[in-house]
Amino acid sequence: MKVSIQGNLASYSHIAADQVFGSEIDLLQRGSFREVFEDLKSGLADVTVVPIENSTYGSIYQNYDNITNYSVSLVGEVYVKVNFHLIGHKGKLLKDITDIYVHPVARGQIKPFELAHPEIKFHEHEDTAGSVKMVAENNMITSAGCASKMAAKVYNLEILEDNIHENPKNYTRFYVISRPEDEGEIKRIVNNEDNGYKTTFQFTLGSEAGSLYKTLRAFADRDLSLTKIESRPVIGTDWEYRFYVDVAAGMADEALNNALKELSSYVEKLKILGSYVKGEYVNS
Amino acid sequence: MKVSIQGNLASYSHIAADQVFGSEIDLLQRGSFREVFEDLKSGLADVTVVPIENSTYGSIYQNYDNITNYSVSLVGEVYVKVNFHLIGHKGKLLKDITDIYVHPVARGQIKPFELAHPEIKFHEHEDTAGSVKMVAENNMITSAGCASKMAAKVYNLEILEDNIHENPKNYTRFYVISRPEDEGEIKRIVNNEDNGYKTTFQFTLGSEAGSLYKTLRAFADRDLSLTKIESRPVIGTDWEYRFYVDVAAGMADEALNNALKELSSYVEKLKILGSYVKGEYVNS
Repeated sequence: MKVSIQGNLASYSHIAADQVFGSEIDLLQRGSFREVFEDLKSGLADVTVVPIENSTYGSIYQNYDNITNYSVSLVGEVYVKVNFHLIGHKGKLLKDITDIYVHPVARGQIKPFELAHPEIKFHEHEDTAGSVKMVAENNMITSAGCASKMAAKVYNLEILEDNIHENPKNYTRFYVISRPEDEGEIKRIVNNEDNGYKTTFQFTLGSEAGSLYKTLRAFADRDLSLTKIESRPVIGTDWEYRFYVDVAAGMADEALNNALKELSSYVEKLKILGSYVKGEYVNS
Repeated sequence: MKVSIQGNLASYSHIAADQVFGSEIDLLQRGSFREVFEDLKSGLADVTVVPIENSTYGSIYQNYDNITNYSVSLVGEVYVKVNFHLIGHKGKLLKDITDIYVHPVARGQIKPFELAHPEIKFHEHEDTAGSVKMVAENNMITSAGCASKMAAKVYNLEILEDNIHENPKNYTRFYVISRPEDEGEIKRIVNNEDNGYKTTFQFTLGSEAGSLYKTLRAFADRDLSLTKIESRPVIGTDWEYRFYVDVAAGMADEALNNALKELSSYVEKLKILGSYVKGEYVNS
């Protein structure tokens, strides 16, 4: 299984991929989401695992655009709890540490830890797992990085202090994405536990957000629960939006089929992006 | 009138501020939106003009977060049509130009122009109006920048070729924002023409997006037109969202008052962010 992700070994995308497919995968590590979707298109990858929203920072809009612009099927989802741990060399203690390397966003989340340790120098580093890699490979024995538990394992270091982050409810949701023609095959591998289904679809409305009401009514009238609604502007139009909706039901659900049929009579460019088993939560 | 913007002279924010307040203002040019909101808080500025959404790239999420996190009133709006013009030294023609400096995003929008001119070298420059400033101040006579008409005027250069961009429908919408206590005074200056009113409010819902339906119904039942709905995650919660809604009605409208009253019985943290005259469109 060739899996393309944006990020390095032990990144949160890697943790998501590991949760879904296990460790026996060929991991393609890319610098941008565009390259990840190109891997899927060209056949270099069988599947991709990309973040779609974070509970603190919001949606990853590039990936909403990517799932529209590339021909893809959503075949699964997974939630990663974003934890930050202080990671240094084996045998070291927090009191031995003089320098900490941390991603600017992570730094924001470990602010109380930084304030409690004025004796340590904090440096910003562009890559979360990469900060641990640097400390390991350069044998920086009084330095520490700040990343996931997997980063300590991958780079053979040790967790000096766990869960040093402030916000205990920081989750990133990932979509597992295949080419449409491989959908059935990949789903058989991804969906090992039946937690109930979700379906994601997109459509466009005119420039009046008011008509969204009619759309939602088609689902509310049938007791179908919408778990996420996102909108993105349609390029080249006057404030026309494309909507992305997640509904807690599978395509075998008759009510969902009826709601989508009703919807198709007054929205434009309705497209089912995928129907997949609800994701599990995994720690990091 | 002290107006704080993110950007430089002749930036699209400056064009928006100029449209609303005229050229007789003290312009504070800042590097970040945070600094702009701090200017308002500290009293360094009387008012700010910040982008809230672009018809091609979507919402400016930092500013949705800023209008919640700072104590502000929305007192106006303005739409700037984002045009790109090729700007060089007076008397020069397009055939004299060997080098063009352009912002990466603008470069994407002038792609056909670039492809049609393989004889010219294109360089990326981090600041749209700044590319014109550089060409002017360094007397780079065979170079050109790519920016608004105002940039040509401000830096005393000439438009060599106008409207070289590809997407003819690229608009940025700006909010005019004051401190709540200055709302009345600033509105008297901003709202010179009565185009009808808009009102913007925010509220939070539980984690079920389904209940958004009930919210929209309160407006649909009263024929109130919603022109924009945006959602942002509430930090520290499990997928709870804060919604931002623009409705095409003023606070003097009885139907709007009734809808908001109904809403307040089942949403949380309902807050009116402002009620203002609908914005004009201005070219750039």
